[in-house]
Amino acid sequence: MYENLSKNELSELKAELEIKYEALKAKGLNLDMSRGKPCKEQLDLSNAMLTMDLGGCKSESGFDCRNYGMPEGIPEAKSLFAALMGVSASRIILGGNASLQLIYDTIARARFLGVSEELAPWGEGAKFLCPVPGYDRHFTILEHFGIEMINIPLSENGPDMDLIEKLASEDERIKGVICVPMYSNPDGFTYSDETVRRFAAMKTAAEDFRIFWDNAYCIHHFSDSPARQLNIIDECKKGGNPDRAYVFASTSKVTFAGGGICAIASSPANIEHIRKQLSVQTIGFDKINQLRHAKFFVDYGGIIIHMKKHRKIIEPKFNIVCDMLEKELRPNSSTSDCSHGLGEWHKPRGGYFISFNGLPGTAKRTVELCSLAGVVLTGAGATFPYGRDPEDKNIRIAPTFPPVDELISAMEVFCASVKLASAEALLINKE
Amino acid sequence: MYENLSKNELSELKAELEIKYEALKAKGLNLDMSRGKPCKEQLDLSNAMLTMDLGGCKSESGFDCRNYGMPEGIPEAKSLFAALMGVSASRIILGGNASLQLIYDTIARARFLGVSEELAPWGEGAKFLCPVPGYDRHFTILEHFGIEMINIPLSENGPDMDLIEKLASEDERIKGVICVPMYSNPDGFTYSDETVRRFAAMKTAAEDFRIFWDNAYCIHHFSDSPARQLNIIDECKKGGNPDRAYVFASTSKVTFAGGGICAIASSPANIEHIRKQLSVQTIGFDKINQLRHAKFFVDYGGIIIHMKKHRKIIEPKFNIVCDMLEKELRPNSSTSDCSHGLGEWHKPRGGYFISFNGLPGTAKRTVELCSLAGVVLTGAGATFPYGRDPEDKNIRIAPTFPPVDELISAMEVFCASVKLASAEALLINKE
Repeated sequence: MYENLSKNELSELKAELEIKYEALKAKGLNLDMSRGKPCKEQLDLSNAMLTMDLGGCKSESGFDCRNYGMPEGIPEAKSLFAALMGVSASRIILGGNASLQLIYDTIARARFLGVSEELAPWGEGAKFLCPVPGYDRHFTILEHFGIEMINIPLSENGPDMDLIEKLASEDERIKGVICVPMYSNPDGFTYSDETVRRFAAMKTAAEDFRIFWDNAYCIHHFSDSPARQLNIIDECKKGGNPDRAYVFASTSKVTFAGGGICAIASSPANIEHIRKQLSVQTIGFDKINQLRHAKFFVDYGGIIIHMKKHRKIIEPKFNIVCDMLEKELRPNSSTSDCSHGLGEWHKPRGGYFISFNGLPGTAKRTVELCSLAGVVLTGAGATFPYGRDPEDKNIRIAPTFPPVDELISAMEVFCASVKLASAEALLINKE
Repeated sequence: MYENLSKNELSELKAELEIKYEALKAKGLNLDMSRGKPCKEQLDLSNAMLTMDLGGCKSESGFDCRNYGMPEGIPEAKSLFAALMGVSASRIILGGNASLQLIYDTIARARFLGVSEELAPWGEGAKFLCPVPGYDRHFTILEHFGIEMINIPLSENGPDMDLIEKLASEDERIKGVICVPMYSNPDGFTYSDETVRRFAAMKTAAEDFRIFWDNAYCIHHFSDSPARQLNIIDECKKGGNPDRAYVFASTSKVTFAGGGICAIASSPANIEHIRKQLSVQTIGFDKINQLRHAKFFVDYGGIIIHMKKHRKIIEPKFNIVCDMLEKELRPNSSTSDCSHGLGEWHKPRGGYFISFNGLPGTAKRTVELCSLAGVVLTGAGATFPYGRDPEDKNIRIAPTFPPVDELISAMEVFCASVKLASAEALLINKE
């Protein structure tokens, strides 16, 4: 335990750690673990989709997918997402290749035009509740539109619902919450049924309060006991707030990150409103790509089989990261509690990330040390609104993209950097 | 000439026309000429693109198009649009499958966030100049965002530039103009070099005045003397207003209306600003489809050859429409002037439409009569802001989609309906 060392002992340790770090740095690595990108082998799983016979490009409705029309998407692709998202196809609108764009557009419309014809735009001074750590691109959208973000602590069962209920019920300028409810980015936590029910039923001061439920990893399991979650749309209806939730999903991490399809699901009233607004923006998204996806998977069962192939590729990478963290950073102790070493982490059961919490005040320095040694990580602070991690301790590790040998090299650098940054920080505290 | 008939003669004529119209109606047609959609044979021209070998999906830059990244688009597809739009590739950002969406997004950003970091949003009370008749979907976007539209008469060389210069220089709430400058929708007029120069150089009261130059038909010629046009971006630079123009183009009517790609071109400063804003909205549009297009066409020459194939399919349809209008609606006179019969029209040299101007007060009734006889046209008034044609005379004819035999049947109904509506209108005037 570094914490129990004297100042002199720490100085000696730091000198040793520096030598080890410099040796790794001298390798001149050039590795990128900054984003949750699928690796080549994952992308290859869907290659057959690129050249498959599309049988005249007709949708099952007889519609020629090559032509204009069907702004809400073709029926067979809507059915696929209906199964994926647990709603009827009539409650789904398909988008382009990225759910982020649907999220952006939905927030933009609410902010400037209003969530329904009856309700005024959110306007200036709108605020959002943001479970943290969270997804940096969500926060960037909110900041872009001048929406004030309020940090809400997140733990294993979801965000602090006492705090969310209190704030949402008191302040009518609080217009929503944005989150990744299953295998959260970056922690990999799955919100409990109680959390979902409380979200759905809570009182909000704002009539136009909306939940942005980014279900990016709803089928991205790598455990024999995959997470299950109540359907937020159903629960909102039961809770007397049928129009509260917008749910998003995509195939970006199922087929191609650079050429997938995406969807928004919501209540009939919301979907009807969005359909009207969307028809101003486009005559329709890419229906040929929708058809490709529908023909490639055939049905929901086809997707599930496909996701098992992803698991085979990426689960070993998560194991490598967790094993190396365990070996390098867990203190020598007989307990299985990993919370008293140089950081906390846990192996998620799905999703794309491992969230590492180092000693307070070490995250920026750790990322800097990694970068100087040729390993690019997600910027420290990126998992918090405005890029400000109040304790400067959270680092998002994205293990999927690098090949296994590179991942091991990168994690060696990471662990060495954590140790050195920790020794430096503890030494300063002793002064 | 119907106009020269007495009341009794007109009544007799009307009775005759009713008999002819009813005979056509009795056929029970079900034909659609409402939108400018490519026909099956046109779509078939690009079918090879759907199953072509993409060679590992690598861009010429070595980037894997299947993965995240490159928000501005892959280099080879940017080069293609650079040639198409007459600008360098660095001044281009590629979008998704529809330029309409890029137009919507660009107007939305200007309206709510501002055209640059220094300039305030257009805000409430913004106004636009709209050359008429024009494209209904443009007007719908402006109306959606509460931007007041001002009609500007359009003729062979472009809109009334005296009026545009006067209004734009006087009123700082006038923030822009939106138009289809080549083979205008629906007239098929191509703005003259003088018009382009005046647009580029004119004084505007608003510092953030922008030209939305929807160059949807820039390569859609069907004449041996295709239209040429000055490049608005170059001219704006020469005119001392380098950031004035946003230019849009797409392959919606080149490859697939339901699965093409699109682009925006503008000044370096505008492109840099859009790039920043766009990076909030998306990690990147569909790069696999960009690659497909680049590999399918290889270069600009490939596109030009492809467009000649389109011409072969659609030029005969335009000829049919013009010949039938000539035969049925032009008065028996020795002059070649078609402006003194039951309407005015001309055969365009490119684009997707024929614009028919009937006698004042007859357009709605003509469209209604067509509809009752089973022929759906674009709604009368759709070519004007707020759907209001002040003279109720303009009808947009879209000849590309129906097969030739259906087009002939539809035009028989159209001509019979124009005659009957004209006789009805003239008779009312006599009363």
